[in-house]
Amino acid sequence: MKNTFGNNITITLFGESHGEAIGCVLDGMAPGVKLDYEFIDRMTELRKPKGKISTSRHEGDRYRIVSGVFNDITTGTPICIMIENENTRSGDYADLKKIPRPGHADYTAGLKYHGFQDHRGGGHFSGRITAPVVVAGAIALQALNAKGIYIGTHISSLGGIKDRDFADYITDIESIFDREFPVLDDEIEDKMRKHIETAASEGDSVGGILKTAVTGCPGGVGEPWFDTVESMISHAIFSIPAVKGIDFGAGFGFADMKGSEANDPLRMSGNNVVTSTNNNGGINGGITNGMPIEFSTVIKPTPSIYKEQDTVDLSKGENSKLKIQGRHDPAIIHRAAIVVTAMTALTVADILVTHFGTDHLR
Amino acid sequence: MKNTFGNNITITLFGESHGEAIGCVLDGMAPGVKLDYEFIDRMTELRKPKGKISTSRHEGDRYRIVSGVFNDITTGTPICIMIENENTRSGDYADLKKIPRPGHADYTAGLKYHGFQDHRGGGHFSGRITAPVVVAGAIALQALNAKGIYIGTHISSLGGIKDRDFADYITDIESIFDREFPVLDDEIEDKMRKHIETAASEGDSVGGILKTAVTGCPGGVGEPWFDTVESMISHAIFSIPAVKGIDFGAGFGFADMKGSEANDPLRMSGNNVVTSTNNNGGINGGITNGMPIEFSTVIKPTPSIYKEQDTVDLSKGENSKLKIQGRHDPAIIHRAAIVVTAMTALTVADILVTHFGTDHLR
Amino acid sequence: MKNTFGNNITITLFGESHGEAIGCVLDGMAPGVKLDYEFIDRMTELRKPKGKISTSRHEGDRYRIVSGVFNDITTGTPICIMIENENTRSGDYADLKKIPRPGHADYTAGLKYHGFQDHRGGGHFSGRITAPVVVAGAIALQALNAKGIYIGTHISSLGGIKDRDFADYITDIESIFDREFPVLDDEIEDKMRKHIETAASEGDSVGGILKTAVTGCPGGVGEPWFDTVESMISHAIFSIPAVKGIDFGAGFGFADMKGSEANDPLRMSGNNVVTSTNNNGGINGGITNGMPIEFSTVIKPTPSIYKEQDTVDLSKGENSKLKIQGRHDPAIIHRAAIVVTAMTALTVADILVTHFGTDHLR
Amino acid sequence: MKNTFGNNITITLFGESHGEAIGCVLDGMAPGVKLDYEFIDRMTELRKPKGKISTSRHEGDRYRIVSGVFNDITTGTPICIMIENENTRSGDYADLKKIPRPGHADYTAGLKYHGFQDHRGGGHFSGRITAPVVVAGAIALQALNAKGIYIGTHISSLGGIKDRDFADYITDIESIFDREFPVLDDEIEDKMRKHIETAASEGDSVGGILKTAVTGCPGGVGEPWFDTVESMISHAIFSIPAVKGIDFGAGFGFADMKGSEANDPLRMSGNNVVTSTNNNGGINGGITNGMPIEFSTVIKPTPSIYKEQDTVDLSKGENSKLKIQGRHDPAIIHRAAIVVTAMTALTVADILVTHFGTDHLR
Repeated sequence: MKNTFGNNITITLFGESHGEAIGCVLDGMAPGVKLDYEFIDRMTELRKPKGKISTSRHEGDRYRIVSGVFNDITTGTPICIMIENENTRSGDYADLKKIPRPGHADYTAGLKYHGFQDHRGGGHFSGRITAPVVVAGAIALQALNAKGIYIGTHISSLGGIKDRDFADYITDIESIFDREFPVLDDEIEDKMRKHIETAASEGDSVGGILKTAVTGCPGGVGEPWFDTVESMISHAIFSIPAVKGIDFGAGFGFADMKGSEANDPLRMSGNNVVTSTNNNGGINGGITNGMPIEFSTVIKPTPSIYKEQDTVDLSKGENSKLKIQGRHDPAIIHRAAIVVTAMTALTVADILVTHFGTDHLR
Repeated sequence: MKNTFGNNITITLFGESHGEAIGCVLDGMAPGVKLDYEFIDRMTELRKPKGKISTSRHEGDRYRIVSGVFNDITTGTPICIMIENENTRSGDYADLKKIPRPGHADYTAGLKYHGFQDHRGGGHFSGRITAPVVVAGAIALQALNAKGIYIGTHISSLGGIKDRDFADYITDIESIFDREFPVLDDEIEDKMRKHIETAASEGDSVGGILKTAVTGCPGGVGEPWFDTVESMISHAIFSIPAVKGIDFGAGFGFADMKGSEANDPLRMSGNNVVTSTNNNGGINGGITNGMPIEFSTVIKPTPSIYKEQDTVDLSKGENSKLKIQGRHDPAIIHRAAIVVTAMTALTVADILVTHFGTDHLR
Repeated sequence: MKNTFGNNITITLFGESHGEAIGCVLDGMAPGVKLDYEFIDRMTELRKPKGKISTSRHEGDRYRIVSGVFNDITTGTPICIMIENENTRSGDYADLKKIPRPGHADYTAGLKYHGFQDHRGGGHFSGRITAPVVVAGAIALQALNAKGIYIGTHISSLGGIKDRDFADYITDIESIFDREFPVLDDEIEDKMRKHIETAASEGDSVGGILKTAVTGCPGGVGEPWFDTVESMISHAIFSIPAVKGIDFGAGFGFADMKGSEANDPLRMSGNNVVTSTNNNGGINGGITNGMPIEFSTVIKPTPSIYKEQDTVDLSKGENSKLKIQGRHDPAIIHRAAIVVTAMTALTVADILVTHFGTDHLR
Repeated sequence: MKNTFGNNITITLFGESHGEAIGCVLDGMAPGVKLDYEFIDRMTELRKPKGKISTSRHEGDRYRIVSGVFNDITTGTPICIMIENENTRSGDYADLKKIPRPGHADYTAGLKYHGFQDHRGGGHFSGRITAPVVVAGAIALQALNAKGIYIGTHISSLGGIKDRDFADYITDIESIFDREFPVLDDEIEDKMRKHIETAASEGDSVGGILKTAVTGCPGGVGEPWFDTVESMISHAIFSIPAVKGIDFGAGFGFADMKGSEANDPLRMSGNNVVTSTNNNGGINGGITNGMPIEFSTVIKPTPSIYKEQDTVDLSKGENSKLKIQGRHDPAIIHRAAIVVTAMTALTVADILVTHFGTDHLR
């Protein structure tokens, strides 16, 4: 339903990049969760632009929680998270309605909203709208952590450079939260950063692939049709700007596998049933099997580049050229990682509360 | 919401593979659409198993439309599609609750339903449940066709063998509907069939990649957050059994592209704005741009194989072996293609009716 | 959402009075509930027309449960309930599209469906569509009973004749299920029946007021805004044909009360908190307080009467006269009572499952 | 869904009476509506407490629209309305968790939220949360007015004193918007005010009945089952605090009518079909017939009274006494009228946009 997602834990987004404020309403969180602001701040920091490979706009992202929390404890009523906008240089975006940027939503927004959209900085389509999502996701993730469920996302591939796979999930996930640049292998960071900086120096941008793991999620949750775990996660993840693909477990690699390789053999591990491989990414028939949920997300290169591009002048109905000005990220994948984690936390929390009831996550 | 999907055109699924009947309720179709039963039958045929590369269970799939249609014209009220089950050999499935099949939902169904699930033939998880989806999708697709919107799905890759890309969309889509095996390039069919037959002769199975195109969809529909066109389509598609990944346009290929390659330049084509490339698969910021919507779906190899597999005996809490009996498809990808088309038709119809109102598709 | 209702237990309706079949899909019932067919049959009987005060159409109402039940036990998957139509005399309804019946939906159906509706017997608007609702409600009610929650509905007022109030709730509710004509006071039945028969003998019809009680529902469920218990129940109840009003507890009587009379004083009863009066009908701020939920529903007189009525001829755009033929109930209130009970059971079950999780009602 | 309501135009509420801020997110409004702030302010004024018959807390209710509006024109994206809380005297409410007020939600909130609710001033249950609803409703109503649809609510009955019925709908509705005290008959105001003042002087409070009319709504919108116009309106209205009943048209009066009196005869009025009476309140079979939609809502007496009341001390599990301090309305019905109008506007707008599409109300 438009800007609201979720069955029993829902998030409703609002705001434009250069409007008065952005934010979201998180509804359905259990009462009685004492907020860990340090944890929320840590997640918020990971989304912020910084260093040479990010935009030079310094977003404050100072969030206010204006409802649903009393004495630092969730009340069970809707939690509204607000971020006032500041440091906006709207002049940079003056012509987007007339001269849409290739790869951006300028043209489609104009079609849908008949030119009434707030175009400044991408308006409601801006990646900036993910800032309150991260705060909401942090609240959900904190409650999941208390249940032994951990979620982390790293850059698994960028410009042909590949990070190692998750090994010890909990340790690896913790390590990602401690790093500004989300990779598992220390030596990979420099290579990836260099690749981004090279693209930046050419006025260009890069994309990449993120890999996410959810550990500790109990088996037996999700639905066989429509609200499968894959359906719910993909629904949430595809609303993150720049995401153009998602696959679970072996994913597109299944195309060249045989059933005998693809099936995950079941076996006993003590009293628990586990699978020897995890090609199905922790999900069979839309329902969790107790193994880690794993999926990959592809992030397209940031569409804002400094090279001259072909576009149209809608006011004249003519072809035109565009050279984007202003401040832009040559890559957003390192910042998108925590957004994917946050969206996943919200979705997993929703699935659990649907199954176990409204008080499950307190 | 569990077994119901859609905002304004909804589909609700019911049934078990070896129960009394399977079916669905399609709600929200406009009144006044004269049903083209020949078209529905053609789509239904494409889903049926046949030949050497399919199961030897001959499903009748004779559907009845028991409501919502009067004098062969839709009334605007819910359309219930029923398929009575017949030719069921339940004995084949006797031990699935005790000895779950690797790669199937037997184990997860047991967790979720506490052993009360109808396990015969996969029960509610069976691919057979897609039969009424195809009928519903055919009704939606017929209404879309009348608006100049066409949808087709072909096997783009299987065992390393690749079909050509869509070229002339409408002609190509029509050609798929005329073929039992959905490929664009005549010479590819034999190679793919041979690959499947080889796997079958080894008691094994194969997966592959499907590519879907939607042409004629107007620009400006969809939502920026949560109900993006990608979110809605992926939500629907991931509930098709065996789907483990989806990507739009260049999809996972974006990982190794630069922004200057990835962005689709805009240009005038007569009075229309088009893009020179279609890396974004017809969608920017979650909203259609008027170019063909294109996406790929990966289908994992059929988990039912005839080789001995490792599994567990849940009644004893011990490791066990399993050799599956009965009749099973060595590949389902050629049958899954029309299911993907049907699900896409339902989703696109829903998106259009949400935007243009309930009478749009009559 | 159109013909679907509920958050976590949902019901989807389909069918036309004189079409092939009517039915519903009940989704979200817990796995593991052994169906009590005797109980379902008893509820189904109470909805059936019989005797002098009902239509002479003998509806079979033989329901089939075609999915979601295995070995007479719910599986947790969607339960599709089907009733094939039989004994339909469509000829009686030939002119409804041209000459709409006052008080019926003939005219509004034509506006909405542009004349494509199945008009025979009211089509999708027919009270007959409540037959599968009663079956679904019986399944929900059986599960509620197992939790100590009981629901009953009696005729509290008809033609100025008033039944006594609920006294001993559980005994009274049981007594209603044992009576063909749902009143609490034995001596009232004759008077009410006579009133209906008198109206019938004049070719006229009557309405009345139903009172429903739900006992045993735990306190603390429901929502403060939008999905209040009153909102959810009223949403469901207003979709029953002929219902035109609902009030909870003292209801419209509050208009002439003072706060000091209206407030329900709290007091201890052993270790439990109870209220001395129940003017709020068991609900404060949209949330249950543990007292019986009580509400009244007004049923308008059956619009089908045998007196000549003023109407229009839509084919000519002229005023016209109509004398309804065929078989019709002079009152439906005694049959509507069990429908209100069934809808209430479905709604209460949904509210509980939303709060306590999907397995709560097994 | 909890604190969100609507199918295609949705409102999501957040906030606590004495928290940082209250507000709502209005999603689905068409782009291109120039906001009439004077109109919004006028509606907001009507909800504010004033004079002898209202609380002496002077709420600023200064709303900010922080998103979804650009250059005073709606953009089509979510409109977030914020009201910062000020002038809160929390000390007055210190014991509500321990000693719940009869007739209030204190006790039920404690059950649902396990004592974690923000109890100050009723928290999320406070009537104050309706302030942003009025702003959202004003935006919807302004768009409806532009389509010739008008909505008004007056006090039809209070303490046995009755206002006259709507006569000339548009003129009458306009007159209500011009009055601080919403009645149609000038001479009634004094009598009703006196009744309220008398109750106030006794430390008591009063309720009453509101009557709402919607004119100009086209026929043929709404749904036959579940999302009937009555279901949708009642769902929304019952979430307004203190509402305990609703009926449409003749409503509970149907109980003592015959079918021959109750049916609304159809007749031609020029080229239009109208009904001679409007007992059905503009709705047949859940669908509008083009006549004014009319319904009555009962408001219970304000539960905050100054008389000593029986209650319990939850900390001791003992009976207790309570004498409420602080500032409270002896009646809220005159302020509730505009809230009912606002909720109705949101619901009617939703029903129209569902039928005619997202751009209908621009």
